[in-house]
Amino acid sequence: MQLLEDRIRRDGVVKSADVLKVDAFLNHQMDVALFDAMAREWWRLFSDRPINKILTIEASGIGIAAIAARCFGVPVVFAKKSQSINLDGTVYATRIQSFTHGKVFDVIVSTRYIGEDDHVLIIDDFLANGCALNGLIEICENAGATVEGIGIAIEKGFQGGGDALRERGYNLQSLAVIESMDPKTGEIVFRA
Amino acid sequence: MQLLEDRIRRDGVVKSADVLKVDAFLNHQMDVALFDAMAREWWRLFSDRPINKILTIEASGIGIAAIAARCFGVPVVFAKKSQSINLDGTVYATRIQSFTHGKVFDVIVSTRYIGEDDHVLIIDDFLANGCALNGLIEICENAGATVEGIGIAIEKGFQGGGDALRERGYNLQSLAVIESMDPKTGEIVFRA
Repeated sequence: MQLLEDRIRRDGVVKSADVLKVDAFLNHQMDVALFDAMAREWWRLFSDRPINKILTIEASGIGIAAIAARCFGVPVVFAKKSQSINLDGTVYATRIQSFTHGKVFDVIVSTRYIGEDDHVLIIDDFLANGCALNGLIEICENAGATVEGIGIAIEKGFQGGGDALRERGYNLQSLAVIESMDPKTGEIVFRA
Repeated sequence: MQLLEDRIRRDGVVKSADVLKVDAFLNHQMDVALFDAMAREWWRLFSDRPINKILTIEASGIGIAAIAARCFGVPVVFAKKSQSINLDGTVYATRIQSFTHGKVFDVIVSTRYIGEDDHVLIIDDFLANGCALNGLIEICENAGATVEGIGIAIEKGFQGGGDALRERGYNLQSLAVIESMDPKTGEIVFRA
C-alpha cells in the first residue's frame, strides 16, 4: 500500500537492522486518517469472506482494529496480556514471546467473546517472527472459530513469520512488507 | 446518554457495590457502532473547543479514542503503561494507582507527541477515583499542553473522582454517570 510505505519512509526510524520505530503515526501517536485508508484496503482485500468479528491484541492493535471494524460492521475483541491469568476455564489462554520486549507473557480471551460460530479477521500492527499471531490463531483454534484472514499493517518480511503463515495456508495480507532496513543510511526496501 | 445507559443496563454485570463489568461491549469486546454514537456525542459536547489532539491511556481507552478522533479530525496519543521506564528526559512520566488492578504503574508519553502547542481532549473508558485521569492531566501540565476537555464513557459518580475534577474547573463530560449499583439485584441507578 503506497500510502503506508510513503509514510514509513517519511516518519519511520530505523533503529537497527531489525527494529523500526513508527510511533509517530502507528503505535504511540496514531494517525486515524491513515488508519481509515488502511481499513478501506483491508475491506477491499477481505470483504469477500464471511467475517463477523475482528480479533486483535492489546495495546497497539486496538486502534487499527477499531477503525477497521467500522468498515466491516463487526465488533472487535482484543486479547489481553496478563501476568497472572485466572485459569478457571472461562478464558482461552496462550503464551507469547514478544520480539519487541524480549519476554514471555500470557494472553487471554474470554470464552464468552469467541466461539465456534465466529469467522474471524485477525488484525495487528506488526508481524515479525509471528509469535503474537500464532498465539491469536491458537486461541481461535481452541475456540473452534474460523480464521478467515489476517490483516497486518507492517510485516518485517526478513524475519520470516509472515511467509511461514502463508505456507500454512492462511490468507495473510500485509499492507507494507519490509525486505531490509539499513540503520546507517535509514534506507528501507519494501517487497515489490 | 440514553443509548449507553440502556446498554449498561442490558449487558453490564454488577460484580460488587463498586465493580461493574462491561467487557461485552466496552473493554474486551468492543461494539464499534456504539463507539461511533459516543464519538458523535463527545463531538457535540466539545466541538466548540480548539482541540488538536486526543490523549488516552492503554489499553481500553484506545478504541473509543480512535473512533472519537475520526469525528474531531485529529491524531490520538495513547499513554503507555510501563514497569521499567527509561527516564532519559525523552518522556513525560507519572505514576498511577489502578483502581481495577490495585497496583501502581508508571505511565509515559513521549515528549515528541505532546507539547505546549497542544490543545488536548482526554478520553477514557472509566472514571472511578480519578487516578488515571489525574496522571494524564499531570502529563499535559508537564508538557505545557492545554486540557480543553475530558470525555469519559462511564463515571462511577459515587467514587467522587469526577466531581473533584469538575470542582477544579475541568470541563468533564461523562456519557453515563452511575450513582449506585446493587450487586444483589443488579440494579444500576444513573445520575439524572
